[in-house]
Amino acid sequence: MAQSRTPGKTAGLPAATVERLPIYLRALTEFKSQGAELISSEDLANAVNVTSAQLRKDLSYLGGHGTRGVGYDVSVLIQAIAATLGVDKQWPIVIVGCGNLGMSLAKYAGFANRGFKIAALFDAASEIIGKPVEISEGQVVYIKDVSFLATFIRENNIQIAVITTPATSAQNVCDILVNAGIYSIMTFAPVSLNVPSGVDVRQIDLASELQILTFHEQTKANEVIAI
Amino acid sequence: MAQSRTPGKTAGLPAATVERLPIYLRALTEFKSQGAELISSEDLANAVNVTSAQLRKDLSYLGGHGTRGVGYDVSVLIQAIAATLGVDKQWPIVIVGCGNLGMSLAKYAGFANRGFKIAALFDAASEIIGKPVEISEGQVVYIKDVSFLATFIRENNIQIAVITTPATSAQNVCDILVNAGIYSIMTFAPVSLNVPSGVDVRQIDLASELQILTFHEQTKANEVIAI
Repeated sequence: MAQSRTPGKTAGLPAATVERLPIYLRALTEFKSQGAELISSEDLANAVNVTSAQLRKDLSYLGGHGTRGVGYDVSVLIQAIAATLGVDKQWPIVIVGCGNLGMSLAKYAGFANRGFKIAALFDAASEIIGKPVEISEGQVVYIKDVSFLATFIRENNIQIAVITTPATSAQNVCDILVNAGIYSIMTFAPVSLNVPSGVDVRQIDLASELQILTFHEQTKANEVIAI
Repeated sequence: MAQSRTPGKTAGLPAATVERLPIYLRALTEFKSQGAELISSEDLANAVNVTSAQLRKDLSYLGGHGTRGVGYDVSVLIQAIAATLGVDKQWPIVIVGCGNLGMSLAKYAGFANRGFKIAALFDAASEIIGKPVEISEGQVVYIKDVSFLATFIRENNIQIAVITTPATSAQNVCDILVNAGIYSIMTFAPVSLNVPSGVDVRQIDLASELQILTFHEQTKANEVIAI
């Protein structure tokens, strides 16, 4: 569930298009790693489970990168989408909350090659502050005291933060982040955050995701009973 | 990004309504734990960042549970939403892929009170098969060999599975799940899965979520430059 600063459209792109661009980029990067230089809209669309009409419409917002009958130049399209998303460079991110989930995100190998590096980890529990965490082979960061969070963000020009605290601490952490100048937050805490307009929150509520699946299972079971 | 068996509407409910029901349920449970017995649509809507008109429309699909000028009975509404989502009972789930992310989900405390229990963990790496994992205090499960996955699903009537394998193994695991009768999959692997129609996939691609945030940061930076 996203709270977007400008629901509907941003910078001329529909929100739904923005949400699909990372998926296209991921698939194109995979095609490139397999040696593909050109790709048809049908093949790319099939790979990401959208219609080719949808794909062409989404990509039309980025300017004309496809050639009829030839397809898209994979490298050119990767560069165009990466530039649009701003991931043609690396973004330092901070993770606040060093429980199981925070630690697994800190060590997640899938961030580095998609535009993100862990700048720092924060927690409030004195027993883990100062603890070393090997975020990738040979690369260690030490858990910092959350009371230094605002200072760290300002001094290091951090623009993106991840909240992996319990629900009870999440709003407090969110307020610190926003006051320190953060406008982009990904949160896993199962609570709705109040943020000023202009701040983007991407919430991933794991149990809610599963509950959407159970709705369908439940509906199917009821249909069977009805028969 | 959801691939739904019936895009648009399911069992008479719009997909977007289904996605908001878990959020309403979460907020209502929180209000109840604070002692609330009645809640106005405005208060509930504010708590979850939707308009009260949207809230009332969503809840109207569940039948008439609100009284004008009085609001909703919190317990009654909790029961109605839980029954609609099918989480008035506990669903056993399996997690396939016992790396950092899979382990953190196995230990995630937020599943138990929202309708889910970990039935089993699976991996393909012989060095961790048989390893005990304490999923909650005093409750240990042992990592099972993925070659027993299909049998376990059939014998234990598992309906929901979570994929936390690397991208390279995810489609193979997905095929095993689908062949074993699973119709509901949550996946964290950063790859698009091919599933037959009728199978619901909820994909959580962590780097894609962050890239949606960088899009906004990038757009804002470009606007500043333009000035």
